Amino acid sequence: MKRIVTLLSLIGLGVLQVSAQNEKESQKLLRHVVLLSFKEGSTPDQIKVVEDAFAELPKKIKEIKAFEWGINNSPENLNQGFTHCFFVSFASEKDRAIYLPHPEHKAFVEVLKPVMDKVLVIDYWSKN
Amino acid sequence: MKRIVTLLSLIGLGVLQVSAQNEKESQKLLRHVVLLSFKEGSTPDQIKVVEDAFAELPKKIKEIKAFEWGINNSPENLNQGFTHCFFVSFASEKDRAIYLPHPEHKAFVEVLKPVMDKVLVIDYWSKN
Repeated sequence: MKRIVTLLSLIGLGVLQVSAQNEKESQKLLRHVVLLSFKEGSTPDQIKVVEDAFAELPKKIKEIKAFEWGINNSPENLNQGFTHCFFVSFASEKDRAIYLPHPEHKAFVEVLKPVMDKVLVIDYWSKN
Repeated sequence: MKRIVTLLSLIGLGVLQVSAQNEKESQKLLRHVVLLSFKEGSTPDQIKVVEDAFAELPKKIKEIKAFEWGINNSPENLNQGFTHCFFVSFASEKDRAIYLPHPEHKAFVEVLKPVMDKVLVIDYWSKN
């Protein structure tokens, strides 16, 4: 029984170490924040095509390490007209350099262009 | 030995379930994205005071569930003058409603005001 307990403790420690490592790695991600607004008159269907096309990129570009997005719901009215935020994470600047001119990314930009009003991009290495 | 293997498998499954749950929860966060630029002539010391004061908020306001920030390093030149991104997460819109008028948040805004040039805020419920 003692051996089992020791074994379980070791496994427990291993799990904790992996978690801590993941936590540490997650603190080291390069964030790529893309804000978008759409041309007046863009239909919900046209906007959905863009949302879906962006959300497909992580399946097509392996350098995207994490991805999420959402629609502005801030009550502060400081969004300067931007309605959409896409939040892309990379493990390195090298991976970002592969992403930016990637054919799949370029194809997405072509989908976006006809309906896009404004774009703002800010990237940062995440610190806590 | 068979029992140990079964026990280990069950523990493994438990760990996976907890991970999956955390993953699911992390997909449900309300993100609060704050972009800042500073007045021309602001010194690095003045800017550091703001960075440090913002980074102190998670210790003072328990409704902040996650926090990270960083300085723009995008090569795309689409950052519209914004240099800083602060990325705050809440578990609910109720928690955000506590944060926004919170005395510690208001005290931070007073620290920020004298050196701030522009601010942009966009919030979203994260989707994948």
